[in-house]
Amino acid sequence: MEEKYMELALAWARKAADLDEVPVGAVVVRDGQVVGEAHNRRELDGDPTAHAEILALRQAAKTLGGWRLMDCDVYVTLEPCPMCAGAMINSRVRHIYYGAADPKAGCCGTLMSLTEDERFNHRAPVVGGVLEEACAKVLKDFFRKKREKKDRS
Amino acid sequence: MEEKYMELALAWARKAADLDEVPVGAVVVRDGQVVGEAHNRRELDGDPTAHAEILALRQAAKTLGGWRLMDCDVYVTLEPCPMCAGAMINSRVRHIYYGAADPKAGCCGTLMSLTEDERFNHRAPVVGGVLEEACAKVLKDFFRKKREKKDRS
Repeated sequence: MEEKYMELALAWARKAADLDEVPVGAVVVRDGQVVGEAHNRRELDGDPTAHAEILALRQAAKTLGGWRLMDCDVYVTLEPCPMCAGAMINSRVRHIYYGAADPKAGCCGTLMSLTEDERFNHRAPVVGGVLEEACAKVLKDFFRKKREKKDRS
Repeated sequence: MEEKYMELALAWARKAADLDEVPVGAVVVRDGQVVGEAHNRRELDGDPTAHAEILALRQAAKTLGGWRLMDCDVYVTLEPCPMCAGAMINSRVRHIYYGAADPKAGCCGTLMSLTEDERFNHRAPVVGGVLEEACAKVLKDFFRKKREKKDRS
């Protein structure tokens, strides 16, 4: 685990906030190279699957020339939802590092542990709480501003 | 539930088999209109997320002009994996109809029931076993041919 990749994921999350997207960022790393990086674009793209992790995994597959992302590590600022955890199983990533836990939809340890479930054909161990405070803060600030804006209107 | 939409999903699955893709097809329907339809393209696109359901949901979002797929029903020939079940939660689809159960990765009743889990912010009821025999057969035939080809080489 290298914190610099979570810092990069955080930078992507902050870009998302500037674009009025729920600020989550993800980075895929292989052999010390960033092969995929993205922020959530659900509103911008009008795409229910355009979470940061899905976009970063798809970009990594493009970079590496195939859907198998073996030896790839994922850094994401928020604990993955079932869709994104499932995509990490399907792409066979090596490790998952996340920042803030997600009590509402987190499937890498909070509500369930999909990527460590022995019944699937691939498992990816998870470490949560990487730069947790900073990752939680970018989300908290975003929703606080949203509420303030709403209260003013 | 209308079987004709599963017939259409099956036609997509058969197209996938012809292209040497694991034959799974999916159709998204709203108000009697097909708004998304696709087959699995994981190998063709080199994309770990290019399952039939994800592609059909993305197409539906494009057709409908937004990520919320409320009032949309999904017909898919194989029970959805965690990624696809998660995408159905995220896109807030109404009903899920699948053909063959998936003992290895099925998350709409077999290994777990993600879309009916009360902890998530959306639930979509599931009916499995729609045109089950035909849906299972297209997969069985595909893998049998694969094995025969392998045995000959």
